[in-house]
Amino acid sequence: MPVAENCNLGPNVKIPYPDLVNLYGCRIGANVFIGPFVEIQKNASVGDDSRVQSHTFICEGVQIGQRVFVGHGVIFINDRFPTVNNPNWNLEQTYVENEVAIGSGAIIMCGIRLGKGCRVGAGAVVTKDVPPGESVIGVPARVMRK
Amino acid sequence: MPVAENCNLGPNVKIPYPDLVNLYGCRIGANVFIGPFVEIQKNASVGDDSRVQSHTFICEGVQIGQRVFVGHGVIFINDRFPTVNNPNWNLEQTYVENEVAIGSGAIIMCGIRLGKGCRVGAGAVVTKDVPPGESVIGVPARVMRK
Amino acid sequence: MPVAENCNLGPNVKIPYPDLVNLYGCRIGANVFIGPFVEIQKNASVGDDSRVQSHTFICEGVQIGQRVFVGHGVIFINDRFPTVNNPNWNLEQTYVENEVAIGSGAIIMCGIRLGKGCRVGAGAVVTKDVPPGESVIGVPARVMRK
Repeated sequence: MPVAENCNLGPNVKIPYPDLVNLYGCRIGANVFIGPFVEIQKNASVGDDSRVQSHTFICEGVQIGQRVFVGHGVIFINDRFPTVNNPNWNLEQTYVENEVAIGSGAIIMCGIRLGKGCRVGAGAVVTKDVPPGESVIGVPARVMRK
Repeated sequence: MPVAENCNLGPNVKIPYPDLVNLYGCRIGANVFIGPFVEIQKNASVGDDSRVQSHTFICEGVQIGQRVFVGHGVIFINDRFPTVNNPNWNLEQTYVENEVAIGSGAIIMCGIRLGKGCRVGAGAVVTKDVPPGESVIGVPARVMRK
Repeated sequence: MPVAENCNLGPNVKIPYPDLVNLYGCRIGANVFIGPFVEIQKNASVGDDSRVQSHTFICEGVQIGQRVFVGHGVIFINDRFPTVNNPNWNLEQTYVENEVAIGSGAIIMCGIRLGKGCRVGAGAVVTKDVPPGESVIGVPARVMRK
């Protein structure tokens, strides 16, 4: 059941390969595209008109706005100190505001806010908030010189 | 239809898990191996005797030569400024020449030429052309000291 | 046959999406969790009570201990100089000791020992051994200042 019945899918969601994804307990807005080999966990959301490319992982606690581009192989994180079994783990929410573009292979640490319209370069590891409209690249990600 | 009928497959292509890949509109040469969880888009090509390992994404506009090793989780890019909806986006072609070896987890930016026989280290983010025979590592990728 | 019959699975192994993994010839201990889009090759092992998150690749020659957390999209490597066809390639073993935690998107080069209880940050590229109990981050991975 790779698109679980407990998902809340808006109108016109496009999942060309529903057998090659794993979605459960998430909210997906109108007109969203979701590529193959994508996992989206419970209590995550993707806003209207956004695009989630192949091989991307969106975990619990990630809220993605509208018209957001999430590239291929992007990884979100929600636990700063993961272990195999910690019932008291602390979920740190991440917010991706409208019109953000996240390049392929980027990693977004937990507890991050990506400001409206910012851009994250391919392969960047984002360890702190990105102000609206800025572009960041590198490991750790830094604002590009203009 | 994870290996679409509009793919042009050469003789003796080996795809052990055809239900776990997504190939469409691409050209795959003779004797190529393609692992699971791989996506190869339309107008991409992989030359004879090459090997594409698991979890790799090869996008439109990437032309891969012969006897090329593409590691696990490699990501190619074809759009420098991706957005959710830009009908005038500019596809930047990437060329991977014969006998190149690309390490696992490498990211190859758009508009790149990887010269004959060069090597890209695991996890490198390649942002400019690599001369033939050189080895690059790091983020951004730089030529290794000899 | 995404979980091949030649796998040696301990009791209570949890693979929620057996059709979305590729496991063959490996040994998986008791109570291990394995997420979707995971490949584990022959002659790899995962110890009791460990957790392997989605999109991770564990290759031949990787021995993982008990209570180890392997994040999403982690890539192991066993061949320093991969090529399409080298019958004399040299497999370099990697050992992950008990209670290690490997962050998402990390890449572990070949021939590495991750010492007991060490932590590897998300997106790190580990190129040398990590002492027990230490935390490493970055590309290449370095021990964090305390």
